[in-house]
This record gives sequence, C-alpha cells and structure tokens, in this order.
Amino acid sequence: MTTEEIFFHGIPKIPYKPDAGPRDVLRFKHYNADEVLLGRKMEDWLRFSVCYWHSFCGTGADPFGFPTLQRPWNEGGAAMETAKRRLHAAFEFFTKLGVKYYTFHDRDMAPEGATLEESNRNLDEITDLALQLQSKTGVKVLWVTCNLFAHPRYMNGASTNPDCHVLAYAGAQVKKGLEIAKKLGAENFVFWGGREGFMSLHNTDVAAELRHMASFFKMAVAYKEKIGLKCQFLIEPKPKEPCKHQYDYDAMCVIGFLKHFGLDSHFKLNIEPNHTTLAGHSYEHDIVMASAFGMLGSVDSNTGSPDLGWDTDQFPMDIRNTTMVMKTVIEQGGLQPGGLNFDAKVRRESTDPEDLFIAHIGAMDAFARGLRNAVRIIEEGVISDMVKERYQSYSSGIGRRVDEGSASLEELEEFIKQNGEPKVTSGKQEKYETIFNHYL
Amino acid sequence: MTTEEIFFHGIPKIPYKPDAGPRDVLRFKHYNADEVLLGRKMEDWLRFSVCYWHSFCGTGADPFGFPTLQRPWNEGGAAMETAKRRLHAAFEFFTKLGVKYYTFHDRDMAPEGATLEESNRNLDEITDLALQLQSKTGVKVLWVTCNLFAHPRYMNGASTNPDCHVLAYAGAQVKKGLEIAKKLGAENFVFWGGREGFMSLHNTDVAAELRHMASFFKMAVAYKEKIGLKCQFLIEPKPKEPCKHQYDYDAMCVIGFLKHFGLDSHFKLNIEPNHTTLAGHSYEHDIVMASAFGMLGSVDSNTGSPDLGWDTDQFPMDIRNTTMVMKTVIEQGGLQPGGLNFDAKVRRESTDPEDLFIAHIGAMDAFARGLRNAVRIIEEGVISDMVKERYQSYSSGIGRRVDEGSASLEELEEFIKQNGEPKVTSGKQEKYETIFNHYL
Amino acid sequence: MTTEEIFFHGIPKIPYKPDAGPRDVLRFKHYNADEVLLGRKMEDWLRFSVCYWHSFCGTGADPFGFPTLQRPWNEGGAAMETAKRRLHAAFEFFTKLGVKYYTFHDRDMAPEGATLEESNRNLDEITDLALQLQSKTGVKVLWVTCNLFAHPRYMNGASTNPDCHVLAYAGAQVKKGLEIAKKLGAENFVFWGGREGFMSLHNTDVAAELRHMASFFKMAVAYKEKIGLKCQFLIEPKPKEPCKHQYDYDAMCVIGFLKHFGLDSHFKLNIEPNHTTLAGHSYEHDIVMASAFGMLGSVDSNTGSPDLGWDTDQFPMDIRNTTMVMKTVIEQGGLQPGGLNFDAKVRRESTDPEDLFIAHIGAMDAFARGLRNAVRIIEEGVISDMVKERYQSYSSGIGRRVDEGSASLEELEEFIKQNGEPKVTSGKQEKYETIFNHYL
Amino acid sequence: MTTEEIFFHGIPKIPYKPDAGPRDVLRFKHYNADEVLLGRKMEDWLRFSVCYWHSFCGTGADPFGFPTLQRPWNEGGAAMETAKRRLHAAFEFFTKLGVKYYTFHDRDMAPEGATLEESNRNLDEITDLALQLQSKTGVKVLWVTCNLFAHPRYMNGASTNPDCHVLAYAGAQVKKGLEIAKKLGAENFVFWGGREGFMSLHNTDVAAELRHMASFFKMAVAYKEKIGLKCQFLIEPKPKEPCKHQYDYDAMCVIGFLKHFGLDSHFKLNIEPNHTTLAGHSYEHDIVMASAFGMLGSVDSNTGSPDLGWDTDQFPMDIRNTTMVMKTVIEQGGLQPGGLNFDAKVRRESTDPEDLFIAHIGAMDAFARGLRNAVRIIEEGVISDMVKERYQSYSSGIGRRVDEGSASLEELEEFIKQNGEPKVTSGKQEKYETIFNHYL
Repeated sequence: MTTEEIFFHGIPKIPYKPDAGPRDVLRFKHYNADEVLLGRKMEDWLRFSVCYWHSFCGTGADPFGFPTLQRPWNEGGAAMETAKRRLHAAFEFFTKLGVKYYTFHDRDMAPEGATLEESNRNLDEITDLALQLQSKTGVKVLWVTCNLFAHPRYMNGASTNPDCHVLAYAGAQVKKGLEIAKKLGAENFVFWGGREGFMSLHNTDVAAELRHMASFFKMAVAYKEKIGLKCQFLIEPKPKEPCKHQYDYDAMCVIGFLKHFGLDSHFKLNIEPNHTTLAGHSYEHDIVMASAFGMLGSVDSNTGSPDLGWDTDQFPMDIRNTTMVMKTVIEQGGLQPGGLNFDAKVRRESTDPEDLFIAHIGAMDAFARGLRNAVRIIEEGVISDMVKERYQSYSSGIGRRVDEGSASLEELEEFIKQNGEPKVTSGKQEKYETIFNHYL
Repeated sequence: MTTEEIFFHGIPKIPYKPDAGPRDVLRFKHYNADEVLLGRKMEDWLRFSVCYWHSFCGTGADPFGFPTLQRPWNEGGAAMETAKRRLHAAFEFFTKLGVKYYTFHDRDMAPEGATLEESNRNLDEITDLALQLQSKTGVKVLWVTCNLFAHPRYMNGASTNPDCHVLAYAGAQVKKGLEIAKKLGAENFVFWGGREGFMSLHNTDVAAELRHMASFFKMAVAYKEKIGLKCQFLIEPKPKEPCKHQYDYDAMCVIGFLKHFGLDSHFKLNIEPNHTTLAGHSYEHDIVMASAFGMLGSVDSNTGSPDLGWDTDQFPMDIRNTTMVMKTVIEQGGLQPGGLNFDAKVRRESTDPEDLFIAHIGAMDAFARGLRNAVRIIEEGVISDMVKERYQSYSSGIGRRVDEGSASLEELEEFIKQNGEPKVTSGKQEKYETIFNHYL
Repeated sequence: MTTEEIFFHGIPKIPYKPDAGPRDVLRFKHYNADEVLLGRKMEDWLRFSVCYWHSFCGTGADPFGFPTLQRPWNEGGAAMETAKRRLHAAFEFFTKLGVKYYTFHDRDMAPEGATLEESNRNLDEITDLALQLQSKTGVKVLWVTCNLFAHPRYMNGASTNPDCHVLAYAGAQVKKGLEIAKKLGAENFVFWGGREGFMSLHNTDVAAELRHMASFFKMAVAYKEKIGLKCQFLIEPKPKEPCKHQYDYDAMCVIGFLKHFGLDSHFKLNIEPNHTTLAGHSYEHDIVMASAFGMLGSVDSNTGSPDLGWDTDQFPMDIRNTTMVMKTVIEQGGLQPGGLNFDAKVRRESTDPEDLFIAHIGAMDAFARGLRNAVRIIEEGVISDMVKERYQSYSSGIGRRVDEGSASLEELEEFIKQNGEPKVTSGKQEKYETIFNHYL
Repeated sequence: MTTEEIFFHGIPKIPYKPDAGPRDVLRFKHYNADEVLLGRKMEDWLRFSVCYWHSFCGTGADPFGFPTLQRPWNEGGAAMETAKRRLHAAFEFFTKLGVKYYTFHDRDMAPEGATLEESNRNLDEITDLALQLQSKTGVKVLWVTCNLFAHPRYMNGASTNPDCHVLAYAGAQVKKGLEIAKKLGAENFVFWGGREGFMSLHNTDVAAELRHMASFFKMAVAYKEKIGLKCQFLIEPKPKEPCKHQYDYDAMCVIGFLKHFGLDSHFKLNIEPNHTTLAGHSYEHDIVMASAFGMLGSVDSNTGSPDLGWDTDQFPMDIRNTTMVMKTVIEQGGLQPGGLNFDAKVRRESTDPEDLFIAHIGAMDAFARGLRNAVRIIEEGVISDMVKERYQSYSSGIGRRVDEGSASLEELEEFIKQNGEPKVTSGKQEKYETIFNHYL
C-alpha cells in the first residue's frame, strides 16, 4: 500500500483557485498556503491540522441512531489490518488536502488489546507505519492525546477515579502515550479530561479528586522531563458532557487549578470554541482570555450551534468568528507550536466521501478569510488606534502608577479631591461593530 | 424616632411555633434560633443577614415597568431625612424578624452627594445613627460593600475603566468604605464587580483591565492593613449582567485571577447561587468548589429560576438546595465570619408590607429545614460511609502515594502489569439520590 | 423459560414498608399501590410504566464511551433468542417491581430484519410471546411506538424525509406498529419524531416537510380507524436532539401544528419533562399547558439536570417536581388511558443489576410522595381558595361577560370612566411558595 | 419649532457613499434606497422603521445602573412640552437618516395622565402634531402599540390580570390606541404581552387567563372592524422577561393559541429575533417558521448575544443573520404592510448623540448587505436548485399523493414491498454552508 490514490477516487490535490464559482466546492478560494501575510506564510499562521478520530474513525452513530458513514478503510478484516488501512486513508487525505499536521488519540490509531502490553505492542506496530508515512509525506503530528474516557474502566474517571487501580491504568497509558509522542515528534501533548469530573455530588469527594488529578499531572510532567520529550503540554477545557461537571470547565477554571497546584509553568491551554460556548461564553471568549493570561497554546477549531446544549463539533464556517480568533492569534504572535486542529466531524447525514473534503475546505477557507480580515484590521490600525486612545490615561501620571501597581487609595482619593468628577466617555460599541463589519 | 413599631404595624416579633398551620405564615415553623445542633446554636450555623438594598431601597421597578412598591420610609422629604427613616425601618424589621446581621452598599445607606466630600459627610452622618441602632439592638454588620456600578461614571467599569480618572474615583470610594466598615465593626467587606468586565471585546484591552483590577485590589489590601481593619475580604463572582462578561465569572475564575496576581491569601469568596446558575452550574456548585479550595467565605442565599437567564434574586425556598448548601457549610465547620445573607427581593408584585416578612420567614425556614436535614445526614453517616468506602483505595499502598504526590508513571505502569484490568464498580448514583431523599 | 427468578437473583417482590431506614433501598416507603386517595387507588392515580428500551436494551454507551452495562439477557446467541430472553427478563422485572404497564418501540422488542417482511415476522413471533407473558402476569402495554429514527435510512427524517421512499418505509413500519398495538391491547400509541426536523435550514423545505408530516399522521389516523384500534394517539414533543430543531418543539408547538392541519381531535400529548426543560421551560410547564388546552394524555416521568443541555433521561427524584405534576394530574381527573412512564435510564456508571430496581423504587416513591403532597394540598384547599379569591372578579358583572366572551372595548372603557384606576393587589408569590413548602 | 436641525447639530442627511472608508461611519456604504433589486426598490424590500421608545425615550438605565444618556429633548419642562420636543427630535432624526417609518407605544408619545380621560387628551394633542410632522416629512407609522406593561396597574397582567378591573383599563387603552392608529394611518397594530403570563404557577389559573386573553383579542378585532381600521393586527411573541413565562412564547405557541381560539385569520406575527433566541431557537428560526405557516407579518430587526439570557435589543450587525432573514422575506414576496423595525437601543455606554446615527446606519447597512446577498443567492439559484432536486420524489407518483394527502399506509407498505430499502442520500450540509458563505 502507498499513500497514492486508493480511498478517495477522483479527488486530486486541492488547488487554490480564487475565481472558482459557488458550485466548485473542491477548490480553495481563500486559502493560499504560501502567500505571505505580515511576514509569515499563510500556512504558518494557520497551522491546520486534521483530527484522526472524527474523520477516520467516526461512524455517524449518535445517541439516537446507528452508524451512517460507510468508510471503506474501516470495513472488515482484523483490527490491526483495519488500523493500517485507516492510516493509509488518512495520509492520502492529508496529502490531497495539503494539510501539514494531524492529531490523534492512542486508541484511534491502534486498537486496544486484551492487556496493556498488547495495547502497547499494537501502538508500536502502527506508529512504525505512521513514522514511515510521516517521513514520506512530510505530514507531522500536531499533538497526541490518550483516550482516558471511552473504555468502561474509565466510566467513573481516569485520574479522578475513586479507585486508584483505574488511575494507575490511566497513568500506564499516558506513559506510553508520551513515549509515542516522542517517537513521532509530536509538537504538543493534550489532556482532555472527559470523565474527570462528576455525575453527582452525592457520591463524590471533590477535594480528593482534584488532588489526585494534580498528582497525575505532576507524574506526567516528571516523566516527560525524564524522557526528554520536548513538546508543549496542553489541557483542553470542557465544562460538561459526558460528565455533569468537568473539573476543566473553562480557561479560567483550568488556570485556577494549575496555579493552585503549582503546575502552571508546565501547561498551556488547547481551546475548543464549541466547549467555550457550552460553558456559556461567546465563541472567541476562552481564546481571548487564555491569550490574556499568556496561556493560549492551541485551538481546536470547530463550532457548535448557539441554540444547542451539547458538543456538535461542526466545521467552523462563520467568518466573524474566524476573524476574531485570527486577530487574537496574530496579536499574540501566532500559535506555534500549537495550531488550528479541526476537531470537527461531518454531519452523520453527510455520507459522501467528498463531504469530508468539502467540510475541511470550507472551514480552511473560512479561517483563511478570517486571517485576511484580521490582517487588514491590524495593518490599517483603525480599531487598534481607537482602543489605544481609549486607554491612554494609563500611560502617564497616576494612571501609569496604577498600571505598574505603585499607587495607593490615599493617592487616588487625593486625585479626586483635586480633579472631581470624571467626564462621561462613550464606549462607542456600535461604531466598533460597524468598522469591524467593514473588514468582513 | 426609635426602632419601636413605626413602619410595620401589627407585626410582632416573629415567634417559633412548629405546629402553626399552612395559613399561619408569620411564624417560624422550623427556625429555632437557640436550638443546639452539632454543638452549635442554630443561629450560629445559619448566621442570617438581611440586605439593605433590596428590602429597604428596592422600588419594584424592572426594565419593563415602573416602581410598584410603596414604602412609607422612602416617601417624600429630603434625601438625608429619608435615609434616616429608612434606617429606622430597617432596624425595626431586623428586630422583629430576629435577625442578627445586615449588609449594605455605601450608597444604599447614605445618598450620593454632589462631590465625594459631600458623599463622605453623608455617610459619616448616617453611620453615626447606624452605630447607635446597632448598639441599641445588638444587630451587627455582616458585610459592607461599595456601589461601584450604579452611577453613570462607572458605566464602563470602576477598577477596569479605560479612564483612570474613574478608577481613582472608585478607589476614593473604597477607601471611605473601608473606614466605614471599621467604624461599624463589619465582619466582612465584599467586592462585587458588576461593571468589571466588558460589553464588547472590540473596544476592550482585557489584559490591561485585569492588571488594573489586580492593582486596585492590592491598594485595598494595603489600606485595610494600614488602618487595622480586621474583617475578611470577599469577592462575589457573577458571570454576566449587567456586563456581557464579568471578570469574576464564577468561583474558579476568581480563584484563577487571585492566584495569578498573588492575591489569594487576602480574599475569600461570597457565593450567590443565583449567580452560580447563571454561569451554567448547578445551584450548589460554586459553594462546593469554593469550599474544596478553602475559599468559601460567605453565601448570598437566594435563588433564580433555572429557566430564566437573568438575576431574579428570589428568596430561596427549595429544601433540596438548602440541604446541599448546609451540608457543605457544616462539613467545612461553618461560615463564620461569613453568613447567609438574603440577597433577595420580594417580587415586584408582592406589594404588601407583610410580604417582606413572609419572604424572609419562608427562606429562613427553608434554610432551617436544610440545616436539620444536613445534620441528620451527617449524624447518621450513611452517605459519608458510602463515600469513604468508595475512595478507600487511596488510603494505603500506591493509592496513598498518589494521594500524597509521591508516585510515578513508571510505578503505575508496573502496578498494572502486575494487577491487570481494574474491576468495574457501580457509582450507584440513584442509590445516593434515594437515600438523600430520605432526609428531605 | 418462565417469568420466575432468572435474571434478578435474590430480589423478591418489592414490599411497601414505610418504616424502612435509609439503608434499605429495596423497599417502597411511600408507594402503597392499593391505598385509596381521593377515591382512587394510588396505583390508579400513578399508572406507572417501565420502558423497554432504556431498562432492557440500554448498554450504557454514550457519545464518549463504550457500553458499560452487562445485561445477561443481552449476551450472546441469535438475535431472536436474545429478544426472547430479554422479554422474560423484563417481565420478571415488572412482576417483582409490581408495575402494571410497560412501553416499547417495535425495534426494541424484535430485531430489525433484512427486509420489512422479515422485520414484521420477527415482531409477530416475539409479540406472541409478549401476549403470553402479559396474560400470565397481568402486565399491560401502556403504549407502543415505532422507532423511526435509529436506522440510517431515517437519518434525514422519516415522515419529513426529502425522499418519499423513506417516508413510505416509515409508513409501512407504522402500519405494522398499529397492528401490533391492537394485538397487544395497547392503551395508547406514541409518535416521537426524533428526526422530524432539520439539521440546517439551508437544505430544508420546511413547509413541504410539515405538509408531509401532517399527511403521514392523517394516514395513521385512517388506518387506526380502519382496523378498529381503540387506543389514544399521542405526540411526544421534543425541541431538539438529535435534530437541531424538531417540529414537535414543545406542547404549544404541537398544538399549533395539529390545529393547523385539522388533526387536533385525534391526538393528545405525551409530555416528557426532560424535553420540556430542554425547550427552556420549567419542569412542569408543558404538563400544565397541555392540561390547560385539554391535551395532556400521558407523561414520560423522568428528569434532566437544569444545568445540562441534552437529554439525560434521569429517574425523577425531586419531590417538588413530582408534587407539581401530580397536582395537575389530579386537577384534570387523572391521566387514564395515559400513565407515568419511566422514560429514564440508570446512569451508565450504575452497573449493578440492583441499580435498576433502586432507580425505579426511588422514582416511584418520589411520585408517591408527590401524590400524597398534592392530595393534601387539594384536600386542605388553602392554595385553591386563595387562587379562587384572586380571580373572583370574573364571576359576575363585566368580569363574567369578559370570561364568556360577550364584552366589548366600549363597555370596558365605560367601566373605567365610571370606576377609575384599579387598586394594586399583591400577587403574594412568596406566601404561596411558603404554603406550598408546608406540604412537601 | 420645525423639523430643521435642532437636536442633531452638524449631522447632514446621511448619504450613500459605497467607497467611504472604515473611519467614515456616518455614510451608508451598502444601503442605496432607490436601487432596484428583483424588480423592487431596496427601500421597499427593507421598509426600515425607527422605534420611538428606545431611541427617543430611552435613558440608559438598567437594573444595576442609573440613566446615562442625556437627551436634550427630554431635559426639563412640563411633560407635554417635553413630549413635543421629543417628537420634533424624532422627526429630525427620521429625516436625516432617510427612514420612512416609525413605530411607537401610546405612552411613549404622550404622557400618561392622572385619569384615562387625561391620558387620551394628551394623546390627541400630541398626535395632532405627529400628523403634521408626518404630512410635512412623508414619514409614516409602521405600527402603533399600547403599553400595557409598564404602569404598576399591569404588574399582574393586562388582559390576563386576575382582576377584571385591570383588564378593563387595558381594554379602554387599546380602544384609544386603535383610534390613534386610524388617525395616523398606521399600517399595522402590534400586541406585545409583556405581562401576559405568569411569575409563578402557584397563584395562577392558566386556563382562565388564556380565555380572557382570547376574549380581549376578540374585542379588539370587533372594534377594529367597527371603526373601519384597515391595518394588520400583529402579535409579537416573547418567551419570558419580564414574566417567568409569557403566553406568546414563540411563533408556534402564538399560532397554536390563535387557532385554538379561532383568531388566526385576524392576526399575523411580528417576530423579534432577540426574542427568538431567548426562546432557545436560532436567530432566524421564528421568521422562517412564521413564514412557513403564512403568518410572518413584520420583523423587529434587532439582535441579542447568544451567550446572554435577557433581552439586550442590540442593533443587528451580523451579515449572516441579515442574509438569512432577507432570503426568507424575498421568498415570501416581501413584508408589506410590515417592515423591519429597529427595536434596538444604543448601549447605555454609547452616550454620544452621533451613536444613535451610527447604530442605525450600521444596522441598515447590515440589512442592505443581507438583502444584496440574498438576491444573489436567489438569482443564481445554486442553492434553490439543490433543494428542489432534494425533494423531487414528491413531484410524481406516490410522493405526489403523499404531498397532496391522498396516500394510505397500505399503499406505502405496498410500495416498500415492491421497492425495498431506500438508498442513503447525503444531506450535504457542509456543501450548502460553503456555498452560502460564497455569497457573504
């Protein structure tokens, strides 16, 4: 087998063709990988990544329906053979789409065995093939993660399980995951604690579980350092689902947890906007907050529906949203070593193989438009000048001392006694919105 | 004027009468202040407090309607005379209700003047009267707070205002507020940042605003220490409303902020369940989380409606909720110096003066029932024994090393290689729920 | 095989034992089937029903996890053999629990075959056995429904599918379902349109889909009449999930749809509170509204978590909620031929066989407590007297003419010219809440 | 006084200037009133209307803050003089903005008097002036409504008040409102039942209140016909706020109510998207549903924030949303006699007079872009062709009989016996989204 055309017949490498009409959905109209914006290639600003689980393991099953997606690479044969076929399909897809990164869970890539040892051997064998395909195609691993939530043993949590035997299993699995990350040159390693939380407070010792979770992270940090793994550790917040409450609720919650347990220098955040909106925030909120705290590491670029209360993992298509995200990304100087990972799945009704391409192309184009918009906003500087002007009182005098932390209440009172009532200044939100719309 | 019967005619001091029938709503049927439970008087577990703003300043106006509540103490006369009448009415109410604490904003108690100096003089004069009334009745201040959100000058924030002149005004106001807290012997001082957040990200420098807010808190801490004010500082989280996003979103968010800026040793949290539910959590969530992090300082005991997306500040009447709260409070050894402050208002349709009593009585009885339930749960120990059993694997061996933070991934892997797959253990949520219901 | 003890070893028929302590969770403490309240036996007010799908087909799988529930009746063997074992297990459960009704989907009971004909033969064979077991145990069918959502053919809808071929399949399936309902003496037949809605407006012709759905219901009504099936037709509203929007959003939406298409005399509603809360209403809302419109037919007695945005189908344990529901049920004279069907599942972490009993017992007891509370509320009449008094102005004079629909605006204006401003009357919400709490 | 420049100094009539840069926010860049699209002038597709209450009566007060907006027309003087100044200001604004319609509540325009008679005289006097200004400027009334929610007498409802005296007052007020509508040539008359609902089910007789509301509407219909008022009656749904639940929850709820009480031929709906999203739907949902049922009469074109649970009444600025709305409007042949009324307010922080212009210009441009996008989508027909193709099975054979309502279950079963399993057809949602994005 090769990464040549096997599974996606008739679909050539996706070209950039800005003048393609609305019917021509197998073209990039906005994403031009090599085009340079603000001194960096578009692909370096965007660092797109395809996720393995949704796009190559997903079946279309949902809580009310059976699988709908027939994927030739997943049909029939022994588990290990299927795993290899799937890997070839994935690399064919990456190559045709022109994406440089992918992400995976340990159990997506290689099937779980009857024992830990067998699972590990499976991983060794499949990642040998992955290494070959990476080398052949130049595609790299954006991040690896361990699936510590799907197996029944994790139903009551992994690192927060009331039974330490389960925590130990999770630890063994992470140990191997870190080794695999090193082997494949992963640039990041993600922890998503889908079962790290509770279904009911009645049966839960919250303080103990948080302590164990912190202990678990410390062990992971120690082992990472021991084996010389250079990648960035990332925690991915999610407020709920499958748990009633997850301990990594949102960006600020994770920051609080990390700082409480002295772990903040070892982790950044992988923000997924669909999780952010489930936490009751606006689409871009956690990206902005994480960035403000210097903790934005990577983005799982997807979207939900604001009217739905569960994780729909849709492909991000809203230009306003992608513009807001890319503006924040540019302002912090980029996401590297993180990227924009499409933790998104085609709808279970999107059963054509080409839908997998269309969805990624549509989302990549949406982000490319977002990037172009953000670059224009930043280059023209209309908005940033207005913001700068708005905060100028902090650049000198008492404002500067407040900003630097050297003022006192007595000094503030004295200032008011001398200067009296401040004047009212319009926030001009609608003006900002109107100008922002100018760039969309 | 005295605190004798002036405003609430015909309502005597509310008695404890457990056998009063359903029609007799001006009796406590569950709250018996002096009854001892778990070695402490009921009033010391509950530490009820009446809030000044809703109960004595509230008008019943809402965004779609004019005032409905006619309060004789607020009708007519000069502002300072009205302020004094209101204070007498409040102390008559506290005394008849038999509550030992009250809470207020600086601007509830004394009217804002044309200048800071005038406002401060107003405060001095009214708090002289408050001190007299406190001394005469034995009623004390649970906490003081400064209103840094209602005046137009604060429309764009107080400590996070883009104009440092406004921040200075807020600082001057807090300086005075701290002095008043000392004068009145307040046991706590609360910061609620209703305008500390943003309406739009477009016009906001989030990082700068957070830095200024931290700087502001540091100044408050310094001044508190300077004047020897002994009370506990509390931050009250709220996710949104009036802002689109408030920086003190929920308990974990505030903990993250405090730890990031090195402020965590100086503050605890004042949790309001209606704010908690607006943040997307269950009623008791932030109380439990704050307590788990050792940060639960006080509770604004109210409720919202789960189907409504704004702050309704209703009186808490749900026994399940009050039981969950009191169980957590008992488990952390009580709330002192904090308490249960009724940050709740009678509905604008509840226009009878007696409604103010009925609402407080109903809520106090609901908490008394919650306390009695929680005491029985804890004394009988059925649930706590089940929880203890559930986590017993952490009390020895590898579990203990995990709990203490001395284990390693290698050790965990070795454990699994020797012990294999953990067994599946039922979480038994429905059993816990059924037993919990037994105590309601 | 018999319905004797096979699958639930060691669990005898559940007794009523009001003095059982908190540890004894395999007893009814409140539900006493034969006790007479308001002239009717408790079991006739409550008409409990066990659902087949969750309790006997459920695996514990969720979107993030594999099956956790090991059910001996579902393990191994040919599909039809499994179906029979499952039926025996169910009847053993019904009998031990002492519940008189069950509900099922066609495909729960008998496996889908390779063709419609085979599926129908499977149903015939299994329902022969069901009929025997019903006859032997006295357990009856509360309602039957057809699963028109799980098979991939229904991914884009059943009666609202853009492809009429799929609608035809659904029609054929419903035809058989109606025949089965007749055969088994079902007292109701439910339509739940899980895929009758849309995922995206872009690809949807809403008006056409609604027309087709109405046409489909008309065909079902016609066939029901043709075969002389006497049961009540019920539509079960749900706002969303799995669809982004379902056409049967909530009670009022279905009522609007039925009346628009002239179908309202043929249907009532089966209200599921977890669906109601997902639609943004309070727990009891749709039960109250459906009843007010004379359309409340049956209740799927479960609950969600107010902080979660998806269907958790938990066992209802909140006494306040069950009291509100039973008060409405009593006020409309009962639910017959409908009932209280537990469309609820044990948590996937509740893996012990006994958990299935505990969950049902806890919920039945919660409803029995709700019934007892509601009976006391109604018998004592404190609340109903207050409400009657509140609306008394409509019992005579101009109020009566308004109530009867015979007044005019001119007459109202004349009334005001003569009587001027109305007086303000307190709504006394907190008083009602306090009195209501008295009965919990 | 004239409608000449008095209140908005230095702001000339807003020109269309497509090449104005981002800084130039007092220009239309997309809205060109006289440009013809699909055979109709842009202003006839859009039929913009300015609302009186937010833009000329609003103060910027919110539940947590005092007024911030200083409007010279509202400062000082007797109430009737202020009312006249305000009217002049409004017409100056309408004229400069170039909008042809306005909307108002009776009490916005003329102050409430001490008696109904005085209120009516006030209305007579002010509407005389309004008539003059309408005649002079050509600006017309899109709709009138009566404020039946702000006065304390309505706190427990207007037509659903438990006291018929209050209902009578509301009736007298509506009688006058209808007369005013006739006098001013209003093209529509709106009913928004802000207090028609309940705060608590405990004290509410839902069935009686619905009956009274229907009776009230019937009286309004009768009086409208009696006086020969030709305008369209509209009901504006809102789910909640200020009530806990409003009887006009959403479009389908109102349709159900109207049909139940035989009122549907007399009313259409005025849909406000911010209300739609508060009901848990997507932005365009109720517009699409109302249109599908032939009930879309007018639109209150505003927006909320998806992350906020209350009515923020923001100016609509999202191009995706405006495109969806205008596509539906075009497909139903326009909104006349309804229109796009900006039921939106500048933020309370937007204190500059020019902000009122900027907000309307930004929103009008957003709708003009939406219109242009929708026209291109419809003219090019890519999406509509795909949809037509998707439903083609209903255009002949059994599909046609289903569509017409003449098929039977037996016939459907026979079809399946002959044709077997339908084939799976991709819904292609991502393709639709990608093509839709092409037009934004």
